[in-house]
Amino acid sequence: MWNQKEESADSTGIIKYKPIGIIHTPFKEPHGTPIQPTNAKGSAGTVEVFPEYQEGLQDLEGFSHIILIYHLHKSGTVRLKSKPFMDNTEHGIFAIRGPNRPNPIGISVVNLDGIEKHGRASLLHIRNVDMLDGTPLLDIKPYVPDFDSSENPRIGWLEKNINKLSDTKADGRFTK
Amino acid sequence: MWNQKEESADSTGIIKYKPIGIIHTPFKEPHGTPIQPTNAKGSAGTVEVFPEYQEGLQDLEGFSHIILIYHLHKSGTVRLKSKPFMDNTEHGIFAIRGPNRPNPIGISVVNLDGIEKHGRASLLHIRNVDMLDGTPLLDIKPYVPDFDSSENPRIGWLEKNINKLSDTKADGRFTK
Repeated sequence: MWNQKEESADSTGIIKYKPIGIIHTPFKEPHGTPIQPTNAKGSAGTVEVFPEYQEGLQDLEGFSHIILIYHLHKSGTVRLKSKPFMDNTEHGIFAIRGPNRPNPIGISVVNLDGIEKHGRASLLHIRNVDMLDGTPLLDIKPYVPDFDSSENPRIGWLEKNINKLSDTKADGRFTK
Repeated sequence: MWNQKEESADSTGIIKYKPIGIIHTPFKEPHGTPIQPTNAKGSAGTVEVFPEYQEGLQDLEGFSHIILIYHLHKSGTVRLKSKPFMDNTEHGIFAIRGPNRPNPIGISVVNLDGIEKHGRASLLHIRNVDMLDGTPLLDIKPYVPDFDSSENPRIGWLEKNINKLSDTKADGRFTK
């Protein structure tokens, strides 16, 4: 198994991770992929967790929602400002959710419908997926509202655009 | 600037990231650190974003809450099962939030109180911090309830333990 403690050490400050699995979804290319899980109602997918991490899945099935952390493997050149799908104005990359980030890490809260054994690996059946097929998985965390949600936050430029969410899909602009 | 596209390529499947900043908090060691932001009410900290990423912060100030993604730099040896702070039973690492994960990535939703210039860097003033001082920052995303929250989820083993949250602090067990 990947030993983070030993193998990620690096005097250059570079941090190294190794995928623990792969996310399988119906979305083969960026164009037309839902831009967020809440915009992907019903899209089903599976998370394949590699054999060496099976023990880590114990008791995960008690959670109806999980947080997937993954590498946005198809993101293009880093752009510090971009027009997001839901606005016509440029915003800083840290104020939007697009993939062309300095460190292209994606997070999504998805529904966990069940876990089945698949040879020595496991398949997690998930719903409301918004990631591309073949996305490398870095971590899984249980979703816990007391930890992960805040009520009535201000949402900046999205305030006037959030109503567009249900009609907005990706158009491939970030892979150029 | 770090060019993910070129520099993260690696035939071994290893994914490489480079910190975009550092998180400064009052917590110098794991013992006594709050275990989650909701358990850290009032703890103030700052996020130093390195000079080369300044443009990416544009319009972030419109958001009252941001998601920080960071490297759990003090996590110890990977353990696929652990007893979390809030229970006396072992659970899989993917069903708990502890730091000794195969890829030690942490996420926290924190309050953003303001952004100030600090030489060529920026300092983000944050509240309800639960990370250790000196934590390397990987990404910042705006917190958007429509993307990031789900109502009435099942929370597995935490269901009977969530009431312990306000009294629970870290005891350093994960750095051994």
